[in-house]
Amino acid sequence: MLKEKRVIRDPIHGYIHIDDELIWNLINTREFQRLRRIRQLGSTSVVFPSGTHTRHLHSLGCYEVARRMLEEIKNLGECLNEREKRAVLAAALLHDIGHAPFSHSFEAILKHHHEFYTVQIIKGPSEVNDVLNTVDDRFAEEVAQIIDHSHPNKILSQIISSQLDADRIDYLLRDSYCTGTIYGKVDLDRLLRTMRVRDNVLAVKQSSIYTVENYIMSRYHMYWQVYYHPTSRSFDSILKSLFLRLKDLHEENPDIVREYPMYKALLEKEILNNDEFFLLDDETCSYSFNLMRNSSDPILKDLAVRIMDRHLFDYTSADNEEELIRHCLRKGYDPRYYVVKDYQRQIPYLPYLGRGSDNIWMLMDNGELRELSEVSSVVGSLTDLNEQDERVFYPKEIMK
Amino acid sequence: MLKEKRVIRDPIHGYIHIDDELIWNLINTREFQRLRRIRQLGSTSVVFPSGTHTRHLHSLGCYEVARRMLEEIKNLGECLNEREKRAVLAAALLHDIGHAPFSHSFEAILKHHHEFYTVQIIKGPSEVNDVLNTVDDRFAEEVAQIIDHSHPNKILSQIISSQLDADRIDYLLRDSYCTGTIYGKVDLDRLLRTMRVRDNVLAVKQSSIYTVENYIMSRYHMYWQVYYHPTSRSFDSILKSLFLRLKDLHEENPDIVREYPMYKALLEKEILNNDEFFLLDDETCSYSFNLMRNSSDPILKDLAVRIMDRHLFDYTSADNEEELIRHCLRKGYDPRYYVVKDYQRQIPYLPYLGRGSDNIWMLMDNGELRELSEVSSVVGSLTDLNEQDERVFYPKEIMK
Amino acid sequence: MLKEKRVIRDPIHGYIHIDDELIWNLINTREFQRLRRIRQLGSTSVVFPSGTHTRHLHSLGCYEVARRMLEEIKNLGECLNEREKRAVLAAALLHDIGHAPFSHSFEAILKHHHEFYTVQIIKGPSEVNDVLNTVDDRFAEEVAQIIDHSHPNKILSQIISSQLDADRIDYLLRDSYCTGTIYGKVDLDRLLRTMRVRDNVLAVKQSSIYTVENYIMSRYHMYWQVYYHPTSRSFDSILKSLFLRLKDLHEENPDIVREYPMYKALLEKEILNNDEFFLLDDETCSYSFNLMRNSSDPILKDLAVRIMDRHLFDYTSADNEEELIRHCLRKGYDPRYYVVKDYQRQIPYLPYLGRGSDNIWMLMDNGELRELSEVSSVVGSLTDLNEQDERVFYPKEIMK
Amino acid sequence: MLKEKRVIRDPIHGYIHIDDELIWNLINTREFQRLRRIRQLGSTSVVFPSGTHTRHLHSLGCYEVARRMLEEIKNLGECLNEREKRAVLAAALLHDIGHAPFSHSFEAILKHHHEFYTVQIIKGPSEVNDVLNTVDDRFAEEVAQIIDHSHPNKILSQIISSQLDADRIDYLLRDSYCTGTIYGKVDLDRLLRTMRVRDNVLAVKQSSIYTVENYIMSRYHMYWQVYYHPTSRSFDSILKSLFLRLKDLHEENPDIVREYPMYKALLEKEILNNDEFFLLDDETCSYSFNLMRNSSDPILKDLAVRIMDRHLFDYTSADNEEELIRHCLRKGYDPRYYVVKDYQRQIPYLPYLGRGSDNIWMLMDNGELRELSEVSSVVGSLTDLNEQDERVFYPKEIMK
Repeated sequence: MLKEKRVIRDPIHGYIHIDDELIWNLINTREFQRLRRIRQLGSTSVVFPSGTHTRHLHSLGCYEVARRMLEEIKNLGECLNEREKRAVLAAALLHDIGHAPFSHSFEAILKHHHEFYTVQIIKGPSEVNDVLNTVDDRFAEEVAQIIDHSHPNKILSQIISSQLDADRIDYLLRDSYCTGTIYGKVDLDRLLRTMRVRDNVLAVKQSSIYTVENYIMSRYHMYWQVYYHPTSRSFDSILKSLFLRLKDLHEENPDIVREYPMYKALLEKEILNNDEFFLLDDETCSYSFNLMRNSSDPILKDLAVRIMDRHLFDYTSADNEEELIRHCLRKGYDPRYYVVKDYQRQIPYLPYLGRGSDNIWMLMDNGELRELSEVSSVVGSLTDLNEQDERVFYPKEIMK
Repeated sequence: MLKEKRVIRDPIHGYIHIDDELIWNLINTREFQRLRRIRQLGSTSVVFPSGTHTRHLHSLGCYEVARRMLEEIKNLGECLNEREKRAVLAAALLHDIGHAPFSHSFEAILKHHHEFYTVQIIKGPSEVNDVLNTVDDRFAEEVAQIIDHSHPNKILSQIISSQLDADRIDYLLRDSYCTGTIYGKVDLDRLLRTMRVRDNVLAVKQSSIYTVENYIMSRYHMYWQVYYHPTSRSFDSILKSLFLRLKDLHEENPDIVREYPMYKALLEKEILNNDEFFLLDDETCSYSFNLMRNSSDPILKDLAVRIMDRHLFDYTSADNEEELIRHCLRKGYDPRYYVVKDYQRQIPYLPYLGRGSDNIWMLMDNGELRELSEVSSVVGSLTDLNEQDERVFYPKEIMK
Repeated sequence: MLKEKRVIRDPIHGYIHIDDELIWNLINTREFQRLRRIRQLGSTSVVFPSGTHTRHLHSLGCYEVARRMLEEIKNLGECLNEREKRAVLAAALLHDIGHAPFSHSFEAILKHHHEFYTVQIIKGPSEVNDVLNTVDDRFAEEVAQIIDHSHPNKILSQIISSQLDADRIDYLLRDSYCTGTIYGKVDLDRLLRTMRVRDNVLAVKQSSIYTVENYIMSRYHMYWQVYYHPTSRSFDSILKSLFLRLKDLHEENPDIVREYPMYKALLEKEILNNDEFFLLDDETCSYSFNLMRNSSDPILKDLAVRIMDRHLFDYTSADNEEELIRHCLRKGYDPRYYVVKDYQRQIPYLPYLGRGSDNIWMLMDNGELRELSEVSSVVGSLTDLNEQDERVFYPKEIMK
Repeated sequence: MLKEKRVIRDPIHGYIHIDDELIWNLINTREFQRLRRIRQLGSTSVVFPSGTHTRHLHSLGCYEVARRMLEEIKNLGECLNEREKRAVLAAALLHDIGHAPFSHSFEAILKHHHEFYTVQIIKGPSEVNDVLNTVDDRFAEEVAQIIDHSHPNKILSQIISSQLDADRIDYLLRDSYCTGTIYGKVDLDRLLRTMRVRDNVLAVKQSSIYTVENYIMSRYHMYWQVYYHPTSRSFDSILKSLFLRLKDLHEENPDIVREYPMYKALLEKEILNNDEFFLLDDETCSYSFNLMRNSSDPILKDLAVRIMDRHLFDYTSADNEEELIRHCLRKGYDPRYYVVKDYQRQIPYLPYLGRGSDNIWMLMDNGELRELSEVSSVVGSLTDLNEQDERVFYPKEIMK
């Protein structure tokens, strides 16, 4: 325990409270500080310019929600031992530590998902791993198990990653505040007051059914209004093309890494080690785009200018893809990079079969546990809803 | 005028409204888009991690306040012609365009202030200048005059830069919202409703005296609580030392610019041209610190790690400076970089002699104009107040 | 027009703006000032004690939303002449002027709905009617027509009373703020920006589909969480019984009106005239309950004490009604007053056949008008939903 | 302790938490429920129509702040025993229970202050006293001592009534939220985190000096902008005249109490007993004004109409009093009721000599306790400030 409790000011939670020295030391590792350089919403700030908050503060916020859950959910504290509590708080804090910059677009060249790197950083070698080892040599492994859902106590994973968890609650509240949208308000105080553990599952009391429905709808609307906003997907499309072009150029001529040393490991290796991964952040990418402005490759150069100066692609229905490709070719643009198809879908709520801890569970007045969509006629009506959106993105110059 | 009015979502103003194509085109220049890469509060996000908002959005916000002033202040619209209105809106939008990253610390190596570069960018060559020239070839000059206070119509400068102006109003509201502090609330609606032009000066009606007093106190508290927060000054101290070290190394051996090409112009030239200046942003600096982590110079390397991983300096009263220097030398740290003195002061409100448009003017019920500190006994009591704070910053390791 | 624009401070809209002397004079009538004495939410403040706002401010807020609609909806202003604009603003201001205190419970003794008295007050004799007549002698009639949906220009009624109107928008925003719930947020700025008149119907542009869905869900949740809260329905049940008892006593012995002179007209007449109606407000009722505390009738006395000191009824499923009646009789309570059944239902959105202006219309990107539930798969999924709630309320003493 | 913790929704504190059955039982007394019928701000809602919140919710809020103080102020809990904690929470809840309606104006006929009646209700006979006696027969006395500052443990009175206490903190936050002003924000979270008990005095750590200065200024501005708003003082002036007229009429002819039975005890007795006091609330007054509309006394009738229909007095500088009296007499108005002088003053902060617990104490970094105005140069500059305002109120008809 810290001698003097630490607090960090936060517009969402008022203060983030830290009294365990382990958590304080994790915050002060270089891997956690790196999250200051990764924006939570990636490209979203091209549409909502106030949305510049970082994964660093979201991670602290997710920790804070988890901390309040342990403290305020009436019978949760007694279901967990002290070791499990520390592990779940550490997991909440570290759950995003393996995120690359601009996650969605980076997949074009990064072969593994952020969960992979999160676990790799926790298991070390890393400053994070060093701190976790101060508990004992099995602790890092347990934290990783909570994150990859292999921990034997399922409730720990449910706290930080299910359909109603500390991660989602924090990001909805935070993304809503930071982008200035009115959606995404979650009644956290009420949820905490009416959650209970029953049969080793976290459930919400029946009296808060409207609070849960409201959460489901808020999440759904945040997806369509913010996360899948077409302008931000336009930006992502250009990013994907830029990384694809870089990879193609590297296949032709591996010497290109001398011009862009920050991408050396990324282009040459299947799996990055933690030191190599550490260097990848939004600001490194941004500097690389600056370099690419002067590239001798006209495609790479053009795409970099588009990203930096916000000359975005237009978009249209995916039905027009073939026609756009023809226009592209006619105008001398390579459709491999200049016609980008993007598909998104969002289901308001998806019930899983069986007693999975991934479902949202309601604790009925009669003591029974029931899955949300069976209890809420609103959510029940929406489970069949599978809203989809497929578009193609292209430079408007090809249509002239 | 734009065919369809444009809006940009903003948590402070709801929407930022753009109906003049000139403004829309200025926003889409590369120099304005660069402001997305300059944080408004520089180092402040090391203390208030939510304070990551950019000069880009503040500039849009300052424009929006100026736009509302023109529209809502009862007799302001009729005092200005259409050309002056467009010029002052452009000036509001562009007033920060010459900001370097981490303004305060950058002065250690950048010889000119941001006002200098703002005017240089407006006068061109630059995309901004190209857009301004679409009005006519004297327009850019007039916009620059509003910013450097040489425009013959003093009220234009008063709108964007005085002691109660669009710039200050926006940054107090925005910095307060984004850092999550409760200070800094300004009653913008009421100010707009009770401002009037009298004798070619913007004044506030006597009935809003408490609104103005509240603004003065909010500003004062934001300075001490946020802008001059010692932790953020600690970060700035390290930044200053880093840039000082870089300059010293460059004087010894000019070849160092090959390692840090982003600083070539900065180290070799008195005045940067607009292309050279364009490259300097937060993200370029951040990447340079990444490179410096691997420097062969142990001081540069140490300072870069401190910045990136948030290993900050401690601080104490400036009286202890000599003692700290002794400790530094004893421990083998060079006090030129490791003992940094920093002085800040803040006067709640400073009345100027004469009818300067820099004063805040109150329009009395009897039609008279009076300077704020004569009318408000609260502000009058505070004009003698000259709160100062001088500290030295140092690495805690030297005290062990 | 007023010489100096008037404003009224309001936490929801910032300011309510009045520049037409007609509106100012309507506000200053005794009938409008009476609304200061009628709480918007009636009994809801027994559950949400902060919900004490009045119909007076809601009426001003409804006027303000209507005023902004006329000013900000792009082509609405040009579809209406000046007379229609004044009439619809007056109608927005006056739409609730015929509300009795505790509307829902009062129906037990008041034979006509609030719409009836609203029209009666507008048509006079009344101060409101006198003010409306200053325009000309047909104006009051036109204002009444907008309120009772008989005005030939249907868009006027749609502005103040449809499924998405100034009335609903204001009360959701206001009730949400005042009760401290997180539901009920409506994105008014965005709605105003994306509403258009097409084919003489107010419609919302397709791009705001999520904003409209969010509004539908907010309204639905406010109903269940706030307006139909069982505790407030318990209070209403007691009120209904009290008024029923008073009526029954009056039938036995008409002299009872000497004890409760404020209810003389109500008990003796079918229709109250405007002077008689004027006296009925929350505060008159409250004083009458004070008198009833000392009634010689034990039932009236008991019910009055319950209302004033918040000794509420318990509730259970309506299935138990017969059993409760038996308990009542066993304990010597008269079930006519002590077992109260209450039924509520709420459909998230109900589409009407045909081109009714009561539907919510979406203006598609291709210029077509379509009814909301055809366009929104979320709303489409919810139209079959008919959430019902039937309970019986009873004093817990009968179960002992 | 309650089996299930109770919560009450509140926009200021989120929830008010009750776990002690004693507190729950006090809330359910008829004297506490009566506070639902006393508005916190009396006449202020004539200017800020949203300011209709009641002393009932403020009392709950004051209790909640006191509860958080006991729980969150680091070493406060350990300085008090369980009995003292319960007593101070009860005192926080009950501190306003002796308020008459429209406190300021009622003094014209009510001979004792609200503190007198608060103590009389606590000591009984009353339902409140019955509940307090369930602890033991000395408990009510101790609660009363905390309220009248005669309790031996001074810190208990300091918690609910000093210059920085639960009462003031709650009413500033609440009045600000409810009137929609931007003043009055107090950083409660930070205060609680940085308050400490030292030498049996509650003090605030030096690091929160700006938070305290901000509180002082907020309070000062709320006084001038809200509490002393001239329009609300105009309303109060009419109320005072009305009660004065009633008293004068009663002296002429005691039979008038038959017309206004609610004022019988008030007019005939020096001190009201608790049953008589219980009947006096806003709603009883309001009904009495309704009756006075039909009075045969033209002055009483006129004043009642002015109050109900908001026909307010105008105001001017007190210098014009004699002239106004002449106009009054000329027009046949009696200046005793129609020329009302009102004087208000407000000192931002008043330090008391000695170690009074009424001062605001700062706990310096070196462990010393110092009085606020010695430490804060801002507050020090303002202690001499004695802002005064004297006006006369009169009906505008006399000037025609």
